[in-house]
Amino acid sequence: MELESTSYVLDLAGTFVFALSGAVAGVKRKLDLFGVLVLSFVAANTGGIIRDILIGAVPPGAINDWRYVSVSLAAGITTFYFSSAIIQRWNPVLLFDAAGLALFAVSGAHKALAYGLNPIMATLLGMLTGIGGGMARDILLAEIPTVLRADLYAVAALVGAAVVVIANLLQLPPGVAALVGAGLCFGLRVLALKNGWQLPVAKADKRQSSGTDDVGEP
Amino acid sequence: MELESTSYVLDLAGTFVFALSGAVAGVKRKLDLFGVLVLSFVAANTGGIIRDILIGAVPPGAINDWRYVSVSLAAGITTFYFSSAIIQRWNPVLLFDAAGLALFAVSGAHKALAYGLNPIMATLLGMLTGIGGGMARDILLAEIPTVLRADLYAVAALVGAAVVVIANLLQLPPGVAALVGAGLCFGLRVLALKNGWQLPVAKADKRQSSGTDDVGEP
Amino acid sequence: MELESTSYVLDLAGTFVFALSGAVAGVKRKLDLFGVLVLSFVAANTGGIIRDILIGAVPPGAINDWRYVSVSLAAGITTFYFSSAIIQRWNPVLLFDAAGLALFAVSGAHKALAYGLNPIMATLLGMLTGIGGGMARDILLAEIPTVLRADLYAVAALVGAAVVVIANLLQLPPGVAALVGAGLCFGLRVLALKNGWQLPVAKADKRQSSGTDDVGEP
Repeated sequence: MELESTSYVLDLAGTFVFALSGAVAGVKRKLDLFGVLVLSFVAANTGGIIRDILIGAVPPGAINDWRYVSVSLAAGITTFYFSSAIIQRWNPVLLFDAAGLALFAVSGAHKALAYGLNPIMATLLGMLTGIGGGMARDILLAEIPTVLRADLYAVAALVGAAVVVIANLLQLPPGVAALVGAGLCFGLRVLALKNGWQLPVAKADKRQSSGTDDVGEP
Repeated sequence: MELESTSYVLDLAGTFVFALSGAVAGVKRKLDLFGVLVLSFVAANTGGIIRDILIGAVPPGAINDWRYVSVSLAAGITTFYFSSAIIQRWNPVLLFDAAGLALFAVSGAHKALAYGLNPIMATLLGMLTGIGGGMARDILLAEIPTVLRADLYAVAALVGAAVVVIANLLQLPPGVAALVGAGLCFGLRVLALKNGWQLPVAKADKRQSSGTDDVGEP
Repeated sequence: MELESTSYVLDLAGTFVFALSGAVAGVKRKLDLFGVLVLSFVAANTGGIIRDILIGAVPPGAINDWRYVSVSLAAGITTFYFSSAIIQRWNPVLLFDAAGLALFAVSGAHKALAYGLNPIMATLLGMLTGIGGGMARDILLAEIPTVLRADLYAVAALVGAAVVVIANLLQLPPGVAALVGAGLCFGLRVLALKNGWQLPVAKADKRQSSGTDDVGEP
């Protein structure tokens, strides 16, 4: 499989699962049909759009290519009309989101490499691609993005993107690297969810909450 | 009237009404003078700026062209010093916002067509242009954007943009199409406000709110 | 000192102090290590990235140049492991933030001039560069950006950027102008904090809060 076509297929698959995750979050907040569809599109495409704007791939694929919108809207409409069936199952949003994270981290790193970014920035941009959709979804819902405190969320995306970039450096086959990277990212994220793995939180002074309240945020 | 000049005039008019809407929202939250002006600028220009970045029209008109800033600041200062007069009238923000939505949806679709986007994406980008300003305003105020749950908000923008795109496909005069599209969008939005027209909301499981709280958002 | 190299050094210094400010805000909200690092990067680089995208300098320096990420992560890790020492001191975040504001306003105006923007827009883009990082930090934390209501925040950035632009118009040495501009901005912001200087807030009708609640935001 060739690098760019691998990237394209992964992008569409990631778009679908992130759109599902965005739509479920929208249904839970009782947004209307269009709100749910907008959230599907934004959650699914913001990561890729930010990546494309940053690497100079304008207009971004999600804008120029019919299929990203169709896939997003299809996922949104499906979720909207079958939401209770979807929500009642065990935690599907978290699984969808983990899959989307894995696929986007891998495809984001792929595309950044294809546009000539250096290995470190391609890795970080892969992570950013994976994170971007979920962050945009949470920001639209006026919440602190989960990526900033969830168990191994960003780390999982970082690992998935790093596998793709390292394989590219070592000239290993990109299709295999994408599968391994996505699998590792998905596995890490799901294991973190199951076992409650957490990154450390800084120990702040106990008197902090009262001491800083009158200071205000800069 | 020619396509691009039509687009330019509509853009400036939309900038003014969206700046008013941003400024009124800022005054209501007791932001200071500069906060109100920043909100005016952001609310008025973010839609157009996002559209321009996405279609590759860089630097965006709102950055390169003096008049967008002047118009935004003029609307902001006016609102700041005459806010109580403005706020006391019946719901002016909603009317300003409906007018801005109509003008931006139409001008956004115009400009996307002028940059060679396909009809479907030009329609969606017109809607996005109309939605972007209000969304940025609401995000800055740490609220869920109204567009995600308000009565026929996004649909009205979609209809306005679609009229422009369809008229372009049928080679009808763009000036007339802009008027019809903007009128339809404005009318739909105002009627929706008056009559409380709503899009459907997905029926979620009744036990959902307690059942999902301990699950957390992905 | 030449215009572009001055701009580069100021950008890196501003990146460091804004990353500190982002990291401290993240530690206070009990984000995990990766959350704090993401917040460091976003708070430090969003201003510059937005400026670069708007003036067409793609890929943005913060994406293309190794050092911005390193500096951001170094500041984030330092803050994470020595957060209580940092937080216990008097209000360091506000000072860091004032310094970052000054440096970014000046470097943002520099770079906008170097890319040929007109004097007025270069000034506003300098202000936007200074504001952008802090706004992104606050938006990620689901709060109304302080810039919209803090005492002389945006005004200080505006003054700093204006000094650089005016000196450029008068062909005065850019290094001196940068120092004067940054010093003025920092001084203004610190004085405003110490003395509680405020910009005016619009007088809204007293019955407003009850009168508009049932109206809803557009």
